[in-house]
Amino acid sequence: MNKAYTDSLNNLINEFSNLPGIGAKSAERLAFHILKSSKQDAMKLSSAINDVKTRIVQCSRCHNLSEQELCPICLDNARDSSVVCVVEQPKDLISLENTGFCAWKYHVLGGHIAPLEGIEPEDLTIDHLIERVGKEGIKEIVMATNPTVEGDGTALYICSLLRDMDVKVTRLARGLPAGSSIEFSNSAILADAILGRTEID
Amino acid sequence: MNKAYTDSLNNLINEFSNLPGIGAKSAERLAFHILKSSKQDAMKLSSAINDVKTRIVQCSRCHNLSEQELCPICLDNARDSSVVCVVEQPKDLISLENTGFCAWKYHVLGGHIAPLEGIEPEDLTIDHLIERVGKEGIKEIVMATNPTVEGDGTALYICSLLRDMDVKVTRLARGLPAGSSIEFSNSAILADAILGRTEID
Repeated sequence: MNKAYTDSLNNLINEFSNLPGIGAKSAERLAFHILKSSKQDAMKLSSAINDVKTRIVQCSRCHNLSEQELCPICLDNARDSSVVCVVEQPKDLISLENTGFCAWKYHVLGGHIAPLEGIEPEDLTIDHLIERVGKEGIKEIVMATNPTVEGDGTALYICSLLRDMDVKVTRLARGLPAGSSIEFSNSAILADAILGRTEID
Repeated sequence: MNKAYTDSLNNLINEFSNLPGIGAKSAERLAFHILKSSKQDAMKLSSAINDVKTRIVQCSRCHNLSEQELCPICLDNARDSSVVCVVEQPKDLISLENTGFCAWKYHVLGGHIAPLEGIEPEDLTIDHLIERVGKEGIKEIVMATNPTVEGDGTALYICSLLRDMDVKVTRLARGLPAGSSIEFSNSAILADAILGRTEID
């Protein structure tokens, strides 16, 4: 708080510095940018924040971000509804979509199971996924949880629930990331790469 | 614009990336932070932007930022009204105030004279400064424009207008910045330091 600033400027600097990755100096620079910019431009940012908090809801089918009852992906009939990819977060879905290789539908868990952080299976949308498998005639579940202890654990837990159902469960391939070098890969990456090796045809 | 995001999220990412020093990735991270944070916290940022654009005006005496007719510095009777420090921007005023050595009043020019950028003397608050010198019984003007070609030029121009008035004009000392080394100082800095050398007592 700087005495020489006005109250509303101090308040804006404070709000900006609450954002992730924005330090005190950046917050000050951003606040002065707002102060200098046209009222119209500043209001565009202010109402964009407003819109995101009022308009965005969860898709009632897949829990992706949506501005309607169902998200555009769930409404897209060109996609194969019999394959559902399970991701932890909407951001993961977007990364997968950006590859252009995904003609499937999704199910967003809303995180991973982490009892130490107080996140139990019932805090995620796992029950709803099981319900969807029973109702929607899903033939394949593609597990795309993060390749971490928590992500793997969550995938294994879901697999155990799906064991008795008539559905194929696959997971994303593990191995060397494209563009990396073997020299600098750790042994977990190399173990995945060795065990999952495929024939060159 | 990412097709997989909703419209309002794309809009917020776009607005964040219009801010200085915020790239595409940071804008995305900030927008997701807003999406995740409580509605109350997000609205605090939104309305802080709003407040800055609606509440802050220029002090009618010194042109500093203010939320009233006169800024707190102009209203502060403990300060010496006979000494007025001339700065280019409100930010400069704040930097000076942070030293704790300034018991004077201010006059904010609103920039420096730069004919190539289309900034002429009449675009600044120079006329008002001259008027204040005549009316307010000011005894000393401390020039604190930036030590650049434009800042120096602006100071010289103002000096020429004040020449026939009964007021002492001083400027901030030039020389080596504290904590620097002579080895890495350029010759302009060294020239200032040599010409402005003072006796050690």
